[in-house]
Formats: sequence, structure tokens, C-alpha cells
Amino acid sequence: MRKINKILVANRGEIALRVMRTAKEMGIKTVAIYSEADRNALHVRFADEAVCVGGPKSNESYLRGDVIIEVCKNLNVDAIHPGYGFLSENAGFAKAVEAAGLIFIGPSPEAIELMGSKLAAKAAVAKYNIPMVPGTEYAITDVEEAKQIAQKIGFPILIKASAGGGGKGMRVVDSVAIFEEQMQLAVSEATSAFGDGSVFIEKYIGSPRHIEIQVLGDTHGNIVHLFERECSIQRRHQKVIEEAPSAVLTPELRDEMGRCAVNVAKACDYVGAGTVEFLVDENLNFYFLEMNTRLQVEHPVTEQITGLDLVREQIQVAEGKPLAFAQDDLTINGHALELRVYAEDPTNNFLPDIGKLETYKRPQGLGVRVDDGFEQGMDIPIYYDPMIAKLVTFGKDRQEAIEKMIRAIDEYQITGIETTLPFGKYVLQHDAFVSGNFDTKFIERYFSPDDLKPKPTEEEETIAVALAAMLMQKQKPAIADNAAATNATITSNWRKNRT
Amino acid sequence: MRKINKILVANRGEIALRVMRTAKEMGIKTVAIYSEADRNALHVRFADEAVCVGGPKSNESYLRGDVIIEVCKNLNVDAIHPGYGFLSENAGFAKAVEAAGLIFIGPSPEAIELMGSKLAAKAAVAKYNIPMVPGTEYAITDVEEAKQIAQKIGFPILIKASAGGGGKGMRVVDSVAIFEEQMQLAVSEATSAFGDGSVFIEKYIGSPRHIEIQVLGDTHGNIVHLFERECSIQRRHQKVIEEAPSAVLTPELRDEMGRCAVNVAKACDYVGAGTVEFLVDENLNFYFLEMNTRLQVEHPVTEQITGLDLVREQIQVAEGKPLAFAQDDLTINGHALELRVYAEDPTNNFLPDIGKLETYKRPQGLGVRVDDGFEQGMDIPIYYDPMIAKLVTFGKDRQEAIEKMIRAIDEYQITGIETTLPFGKYVLQHDAFVSGNFDTKFIERYFSPDDLKPKPTEEEETIAVALAAMLMQKQKPAIADNAAATNATITSNWRKNRT
Repeated sequence: MRKINKILVANRGEIALRVMRTAKEMGIKTVAIYSEADRNALHVRFADEAVCVGGPKSNESYLRGDVIIEVCKNLNVDAIHPGYGFLSENAGFAKAVEAAGLIFIGPSPEAIELMGSKLAAKAAVAKYNIPMVPGTEYAITDVEEAKQIAQKIGFPILIKASAGGGGKGMRVVDSVAIFEEQMQLAVSEATSAFGDGSVFIEKYIGSPRHIEIQVLGDTHGNIVHLFERECSIQRRHQKVIEEAPSAVLTPELRDEMGRCAVNVAKACDYVGAGTVEFLVDENLNFYFLEMNTRLQVEHPVTEQITGLDLVREQIQVAEGKPLAFAQDDLTINGHALELRVYAEDPTNNFLPDIGKLETYKRPQGLGVRVDDGFEQGMDIPIYYDPMIAKLVTFGKDRQEAIEKMIRAIDEYQITGIETTLPFGKYVLQHDAFVSGNFDTKFIERYFSPDDLKPKPTEEEETIAVALAAMLMQKQKPAIADNAAATNATITSNWRKNRT
Repeated sequence: MRKINKILVANRGEIALRVMRTAKEMGIKTVAIYSEADRNALHVRFADEAVCVGGPKSNESYLRGDVIIEVCKNLNVDAIHPGYGFLSENAGFAKAVEAAGLIFIGPSPEAIELMGSKLAAKAAVAKYNIPMVPGTEYAITDVEEAKQIAQKIGFPILIKASAGGGGKGMRVVDSVAIFEEQMQLAVSEATSAFGDGSVFIEKYIGSPRHIEIQVLGDTHGNIVHLFERECSIQRRHQKVIEEAPSAVLTPELRDEMGRCAVNVAKACDYVGAGTVEFLVDENLNFYFLEMNTRLQVEHPVTEQITGLDLVREQIQVAEGKPLAFAQDDLTINGHALELRVYAEDPTNNFLPDIGKLETYKRPQGLGVRVDDGFEQGMDIPIYYDPMIAKLVTFGKDRQEAIEKMIRAIDEYQITGIETTLPFGKYVLQHDAFVSGNFDTKFIERYFSPDDLKPKPTEEEETIAVALAAMLMQKQKPAIADNAAATNATITSNWRKNRT
């Protein structure tokens, strides 16, 4: 047991504020670090002490582990909370923190390292019979061998180049009849693209859901799970909307996935808060993907349904305290949703839309939580992830949480930049989301940027028809004012389409 | 069953916003009313439609039931939510609303009327054996009769003038030996003050706690209770800090008080959300005080521990829907606190301190909810209750809720006026509050305005000693800058003491 009196948060933005709030509640002093681009950031003002650690680029500041450890020594810091991203899953940094006599609020460097390698992680969890996506364990080139494996796995299967990436040399094969031909094409494609024709073969999951289990371990060997988070709504393979519990898990499946997640954590003697990610197919078979050895962006939905403060738990575990509860003490109460509000234009392929928050007013009220790092008038820096806020809502059931989220989106006032708020509203009102029947392909299946373009009002449609009629008759428009209004709408749509 | 499509909220400030948020979540259109003093108020902007109903004084606007009903007719409103205060417990208004074919979101006019009279209420609940403070049921003047009653009740007893008020003609008598003398004094005091010498005699509760039970009834005869709220921290007989659950109730006592509260509600066929107030003495005996036939200011703490949205329940019940749960479905999860943030100066006898919110930044994060009706730059009108906000925090237990509240108070930034925030922090850090061992006399027992005056820092004390030493030696001060700083502190203290 080692009491923590001062924490340095090696991060910025909402997660730095998030961690500091809990530290303050626990009577722990806080130290912020910041880059030159973040001089006026909220996390700097919120901390008891703040130190500039370098230039605006991450590798000049937030990734400078050596500088950060030096700051800790100078300011008598006891422990470092890494947040997520940056140094949070850097085993070398965790090792250096320990070597400097400081507490790293997270798992051991060994656990980070083990789970950081997909192959090593799979080998480590093998003895626990964790289900994995069936497939080859090594790269192959022999067509006959590949065919036998494919038949054993069962079609559809996925052939992917072992040296590949970005979809190159990747093929979905539906039946054995065309396997040989497709395999040969994949091998020659891979050879010409990467100079390496070897491929992996694995079961193709056509309709995958991304469902993850939150785990929590202490230094006394206790590990529990805090149920699941459904994270299937993604854009560019990044989560946009998360929820807990999932709309599709049965209590039995939840228990089973929970047990598997706890076993994955046991396989690396996990300490602190971690997340075990699974793919779930349309028949509710689940497959281990990987373990994230840190606090997740989407941890608030778990907090809302369990009533636990995950940062508090992390700090207490780091102090050497045993967990105050066992698995059977934990229950799910209500339903929570999180929408990541990004400075991105959903009508323009979710490209970042950096700028000043001209208006910035947060929604409030029962069942609404906003975790952010900005205030009205602030600029969103171009150097970092363009997330403005996490909008979290919770209610007694899924329907209520959805209704609260839609109300909160409507209440949120942000001008000066485009955000993912309208996209979030679109998803939350979509039948597929409301029914719970969706997967990670939601956007490609259901979303087109046109869905967010303002629908013409009845009045505007009447004007358009009248204008068209007049043009056909080569009349001079008699309703010039309204025509100007229509023009203005076009202009602002154009502005929306800038990158 | 009658679907509500449009609600008029006959109120202002935070409760108007509170009700409208839930209405929006339910897809119900909202109408605000406002006085001339509230033209720029948030509730006006938040509503779908808003109508000015008169002058700044309540009786020119928010109390004009006739005007309000007229607005409803003009705008096709289905239902009126009265909030709390104003017309919420006005049986005549409720009757007029019904007569106009509108839904009054609250109990029947008969229930309001019955519970509005203490004597009638006591008579109505008599058959349910609800415990009441023992005492005379009628006013008496005869000393011998009074003495017998007093002995039957047991000392200490309270003598109070039946025509009285404001403590006049009120006496606490500790023993039978001095009863006659005190009774005669009380009677003559009452006679000279009110021209009526008759008095009531009742048991004197020296250390009372104010604990109330939230009830909820539907139109199908179902009534449940949603556990208790502890509201003992009061100033000028008005609540400042509320919490749920209470720190002192046992599960058995909670059940028993809950059963009594449900019976009180049954006695008036209660429909909607109501509150049954009890006095609890130091031996945990409880006594029925009265029933409030409306949503209470402090309802959020109940929402946080039950996961229910009380306004949603009110609206559903008003539509004729049966409650979706029975008593056994309800459980307490975690602990919630509410601090009423008033525009009052706690160092100056809690006198209102009206003015402009020069800075107004709300606290955020896990376990914090702010219900308010203001934004930075707004004025607090002088015409209404000076409550700025309700700061609500919740955690897995009482300790965590207290820690979150202290952090939230520290994070709340309000300048331009004095508020009850520092008083709240004082209470939350006081041993009596932390231990749960307190009663409605907390302020008179433990609080002096000096408790909130800034303690001189070590540096300031050193300077003061140095200055004193110099003055005694008639030296010219060598530390003029610091002396000026001390002067500035005095100035701002003076400003604090203005009324």
C-alpha cells in the first residue's frame, strides 16, 4: 500500500480533465503537462500545477516520456496517469516510470507488451480456450493446403496477404468451387504488391459487431468484469457511438464473454482497468480480437450503468488496495449511450473541420453528461485528435437513453465548425439502430452525406416549382426576395462542402 | 388514455427547463409563459412557443391562472405542468384547468384541497394509524386540563398559541413543576398578542430531522413510494441541502415510513408525484407532518438513486398510463446530494444578493448534474425566489457523493454576486454532516458567518506582525507593496459585507 498524494496526468483534453476531477475528489494534487499549442487549454487551468513540456506536435511534447518523468521528479509527483493514446500503451514508458520510482497507473509493462502483440497475446490466452476467428496460424502459399484449411473452416472465408494492409490482396470467397482461382489471384496480387505471396486464411464474418468487455484487476489477484460495451457504430474503423449494455447480448452470453475476458486478463496478470475486444457474428458467436491495456475513450457508459468511477478504481488499485467488490456484487442499472462529438464534417467524408468554437453551449439535465476540454471561443488545435466532447446519456432503458441523446444533441449549441452531432442524430433515429439490428458496416449500408442535407421545406419547394415554371415561361421572377433566400441557402451549403 | 401532444409549463427558471427537457425527450411540444422580467430567460428560448403573460410581479403573470388557461386554448395545448410554487398547489386552478378540458399534470383538485388543510389531512389519514406528534386535537385554555394532557404526552412539551405564528406565545416546558406557571404566561401572551388565549399542547421534539418520502400514484389505484429524502439542513426553515437515502434510516424504518406515506397518499386517492413529510426524532420515532401535492424542488436526488425520471412518470400518469413497476421492482442505487445554490450572502444572514452573473461556469463530469435557468451575463431578477441552480452529485456511496459535491463546488465559477456555495462547502466538510449526526438546527448549532471569512494566510499573518512591530517602533513600513495588498483584501471583505 502506497498512498498517492500527487498525480501527473500525461495527457490533454477531456481525459486529462476527467482524471483530474476524480483525483481532486480523492484529495490528490494534480499536475498538468501541456504543449505550446495547449497554453490556454482547460486542463492546464484545472490542474494545481502545470508544466509546458515542448512544441505543439505530439512527439515534441505529450510523447516525451523522458521530459515527463523529469517533471515528476521536480514536482514530487507520486504517480502518472497516462489517459488513453499517447504513452498509455507504451511498455517502455511504463518501465521507465517504474524505474524512476514512480507509480504507473495502469498494468505492468509486461502485460502491456504481451497484449501489444497479437500473436503473443493469442498464444498467452490459448490455455483458457478463448474463442478466436478460425483460420491459419501461419502464412501459406500452397493452394491445395489452403483449400483444405478453407474447407475445414467452412465458407465464406477470407484470404488476406500476410504482408498486406489496406485491403490489398484481400478476397472473400463464398464457395469451394471458386476457391482455387481466387487463391491464385490473391497470391499473385500479393506478390506484385508486397513482393510476398503468402496469405492467411480465416473465417469471413460478414456482419460483425464490435463488443468489448471492461475488466478491472487489483494487485491481490482479483479480477472482475464490468459487463460489455457495444461499439459497432464506426466511421473509418473508429468508434463514434458506444453503448452499454449491448442490445443483443443475452444474460448467458454476457456471463460467458465476461468469463472469457477475465481469463484473458488472468493470462497477463492484469492490474487496473482494461478492455477485452471481441467480434460477434450474426449468430452471436464471439471471437477474441485483442486487449486494450488502458482506460478506453468510451469508459463513461460503463460508469453510468455500474455506478463505479473507473478512474477512482484505477487509482485505488495503483495504491495497492484490493477491489472493494466481487463479481456477484456488480449489476447493470439502466442503459447508457456515448456519442463522440468530433470536429469533422460528416457530409464530407468525416474530414476534420478545425477552427474556433464560436458558440459552445453544452446540454444539461437529468441523464446527460458531457466530458470535454473546451469552452466557447477556444480553437480546436490541428495537432491532435479532433474530438471536442463525449456526449453521454443514460436512462432506465435503451429507449429512454436514445430519447435523452436526441434531446441533448438538439440542445447542444456549437457554431464555427462542423461536427458529428447531426450524424449522431441520424444514427439514433435510424430503424437499424433503434431495433438493435446493426453491425460495424452501418455507415456503408445506411449512410449517405445527403441524409444530413437540409430537406427543402414545403414553402421552399413551392418557390422552386414556381421559379421553374417562370423560367420555362421566360417570365421575370415576381418574388425576388424569396429567390434571394434560396440563393443564400445554396451559398451556405457550399460553405458546408469546403474541406 | 389520452395522449399529450403539447404541454404548457406554468412556471419559470430551472423547473420550467427541467420539465421541458423531458417533454422534448417524449416528443411532446412545449409552451413557455413568461413575465416582462423574464423576456430573456432561458426557459423562453428553450420552448417551442412562448407567450408573455404579464408584468414582473408573480401576481401579474405566473399566478394569472385565467390568462394561462386562455393561452392554452389559443395554442391548442393539451396539458399544464405547474412545476412547484406558483399555482402548483392551488386547487382552484387545478379545477379551472380541468373545467377548460385540459389535463392538470398533478393530483386531483380534491386531493390538493384535502392535503392543503392540516386538520383535514390529519382527519383523513386517521384510519391508517399514521403516527403524529402527540398533542391536543383542539385549542384549550383550561390550565388543569392542559396539565393532564401534558403529563399524558410526557415532557418536554410545547405550548403554542392556536392563533399564533412567528414563535409568539410559544414555550417549551421541561417538567411538570413549572407547567402551570408557563401555561399561564403563554395564555396571557397569546391573549395580548392575538386577542385569543387558547393554546395547543404537543410533544416537543428537541432534535428533529426533516425526512420525506416520495410517492407516485397512477389513475388505476397503484401507489408506490420511491424511498426517502433527508432535508434537515435548512436556513430560515427552508431547505438548502437534501440527500437520498438518509444517513440514519434502517431498511426496516424505511419500509415502515414508506408504507405510511403510501397510506397517506391512499387517503386522498393520490395521482402523480407527491411527497409525504415526516419529523424524525433522535430515537428515530417518526411523525407525519404534511403532504406536498406537487413535484418537489429536491426531486433530483430521488431520480439519481432510483434511475427514474419523475417528470416522465408524472406525464405518463397524467395520460392515464399505469405505473410500469411495482414497489418490489424499486431499489436504491448509490447516494445523491443536492445543494441549492441561492443568490444569497451566507455571511450576511442569507440575505438575497441579486445582481448580474458576471462569470457563470458550471461544474461537469461523472456524478454531477446542474439544473438551472441562467447563463453567464444574465441578471437574477428581484421578483422571484433567488435560487440560481440546484447542484446535484451522486456516487456509489455517501462519502463519494460528498467528495463529488465538494469538487463540484470548487469547480463552479460564479462572480458578480454572493452565493450559498461556500456555505454548502462548509456544511459538507463539517463533522456533524459527515457523520450523519445532525438535525434541522444545524445552522444555529454549528454555523457562524465568521466560518466563511477567509482565514489569513501565513504570509499575511507574518506581514501583520511585522507591520504591528514597525508601528510600535514608529518605523516607516519598508514593505509598502505588501501593505497595499493587505489593504486590497480589506476592501474586498468590505464589499462582501454589503447587503
